[in-house]
Amino acid sequence: MNLRADPRGPNLHVGDDVTIGPGVEFGANVVVHDGCVIGAGTLVGDNAVLGKRPALGGSSTARRGSLPGLTVGQQCTISTGAIVFAGSSLADDVIVGDLAVVRERVTIGPNTVVGRGATVENDTSIGARVRIQAEAYVTAYCELEDDVFIAPCVVTTNDNFMGRTDKRRALMKGAVVRRGARIGGAAILLPGVEIGEDAFVGAGAIVLRDVPARTVVVGQPARVLREVPPEELLDA
Amino acid sequence: MNLRADPRGPNLHVGDDVTIGPGVEFGANVVVHDGCVIGAGTLVGDNAVLGKRPALGGSSTARRGSLPGLTVGQQCTISTGAIVFAGSSLADDVIVGDLAVVRERVTIGPNTVVGRGATVENDTSIGARVRIQAEAYVTAYCELEDDVFIAPCVVTTNDNFMGRTDKRRALMKGAVVRRGARIGGAAILLPGVEIGEDAFVGAGAIVLRDVPARTVVVGQPARVLREVPPEELLDA
Amino acid sequence: MNLRADPRGPNLHVGDDVTIGPGVEFGANVVVHDGCVIGAGTLVGDNAVLGKRPALGGSSTARRGSLPGLTVGQQCTISTGAIVFAGSSLADDVIVGDLAVVRERVTIGPNTVVGRGATVENDTSIGARVRIQAEAYVTAYCELEDDVFIAPCVVTTNDNFMGRTDKRRALMKGAVVRRGARIGGAAILLPGVEIGEDAFVGAGAIVLRDVPARTVVVGQPARVLREVPPEELLDA
Repeated sequence: MNLRADPRGPNLHVGDDVTIGPGVEFGANVVVHDGCVIGAGTLVGDNAVLGKRPALGGSSTARRGSLPGLTVGQQCTISTGAIVFAGSSLADDVIVGDLAVVRERVTIGPNTVVGRGATVENDTSIGARVRIQAEAYVTAYCELEDDVFIAPCVVTTNDNFMGRTDKRRALMKGAVVRRGARIGGAAILLPGVEIGEDAFVGAGAIVLRDVPARTVVVGQPARVLREVPPEELLDA
Repeated sequence: MNLRADPRGPNLHVGDDVTIGPGVEFGANVVVHDGCVIGAGTLVGDNAVLGKRPALGGSSTARRGSLPGLTVGQQCTISTGAIVFAGSSLADDVIVGDLAVVRERVTIGPNTVVGRGATVENDTSIGARVRIQAEAYVTAYCELEDDVFIAPCVVTTNDNFMGRTDKRRALMKGAVVRRGARIGGAAILLPGVEIGEDAFVGAGAIVLRDVPARTVVVGQPARVLREVPPEELLDA
Repeated sequence: MNLRADPRGPNLHVGDDVTIGPGVEFGANVVVHDGCVIGAGTLVGDNAVLGKRPALGGSSTARRGSLPGLTVGQQCTISTGAIVFAGSSLADDVIVGDLAVVRERVTIGPNTVVGRGATVENDTSIGARVRIQAEAYVTAYCELEDDVFIAPCVVTTNDNFMGRTDKRRALMKGAVVRRGARIGGAAILLPGVEIGEDAFVGAGAIVLRDVPARTVVVGQPARVLREVPPEELLDA
């Protein structure tokens, strides 16, 4: 770790090959690791860590190999204590909440919010204007399209074998959440389910199967209840 | 951000107009933002951040406008890595656990504990002797009366529309949990439900409707099972 | 708090009677409290706090009294923002993830991973090669044997009385998870349940009763569905 104290912030530490745009503001005790590019006007809160490189366990299924630095767009907010890894790319106007974690090889589109304490695991792609609310858990290999809403404490999963057998490595699959779909508080998505466009998953639902576009599902396991009211569709 | 190094703690940074009472102790790397008032004898753990001002996203429904500084009472403990926002007020003898977050315009009564990793969102009021246990999620606009017990990983919600339509802004409503009620581990409270005095919600229950005082509810959705045994009532 | 700046890391603070082995690397802003012993080759990430001493609330049921320092084995990784308490002992090659918390009097066997944001409460014992995944909540007085797998966001509980009555103090009991058992994402284990060897608890299951060895249980409440396939047994 090649960190050096840097006068651009209070107790700021910065690594090698870091590019910091004009107007970037740092809270106290921020750490910016090797290779980070931070766009103009971005705010970085106290204790945030940017560009961390993963220390993978021996049994981790995450891909290995060298990673480019983290890229953060313009006018973003990386909040207090948040951790954003190397190899990821945040578009402009993204907010990463307090104590949220975004791992390596994640792409995040413009105007998206990753809420307080939320976790986005490696190799997940997230579109524009997505709202991932507080404490939600977005596992590795998920795909969240534009305008998706993930309520607080939602849980996604990607491994039906829970670490046993080697064939699981080929079968791991996160959720695919299509444009404008909404997932209710503390709902659980089983590995590989697809939530259709503008669908609505009720709070606490356990989703075992794909959910058709524009339908409301509720329950444990989740079943179709009705259609989403027209006035709640994204293009209404 | 007007932070200056301050000799009263190891790598302590302090903003403007901060009042620190006698006997306050600071761990390492604490940040105290503008306008904080910290009562006598309070302990502030390593990496804690006090008086943070919110950086709201464009779609956030939280109220905007200037906030007074955070007020922390006497003999409180703000634990390691905790974040407590400006505009909130903690009475005496409050404990905020490690990595817990308390947002703006929250009031907390004396002898209350906000557990490790728990989140209390904006505009929530919490009484005296409340115990919010680890990793619980208390959403915005909740009301928790005195002697309430919130078990680990409880989830509350406040938005039946999940960010769609503008009428939701008027209809957002968190849970009301009456005096002495207990909410079991990982239970889910739907928006606006009222949990009656001394009621008991079983672990994992999903509460769609109001729960009468002194009743035990369990299941998904939660149904009344029996009365709370007299020896478990608050005034027993 | 007797913390002093220490040149072995960027803004490192160290307490009294600390032993740091050869080849230990520190990120920025690490705090090492009194009495810690850190084994050779261990990596400590930015903002990690080692050897914290608990500040118990008046109603806490955790045991009180003096604690020995934290012991961390060789080649461990304590990740960014993690907090590991005094009185605990980590064997070699343990990984504690970003923002994870391990409390006092916890023992952890070799090659075990405590995932990102996970919490392990006091007085819990954890074997070798255990994987506790992100955001899981392992309550006080649990026992996790070797090769256990705890999926993301699993919740365990230990108090059927939720803080009411004094007899609860004698009856608090966490889960016992036998060798090789796997607990699915966001499953909830009620106080004191025993999960048998190589058993499999489905995602979102609510486990009210003991689960026999080598069986698959699913649902709310959890019921036996079938046997675990032979190729998924630990000794397959």
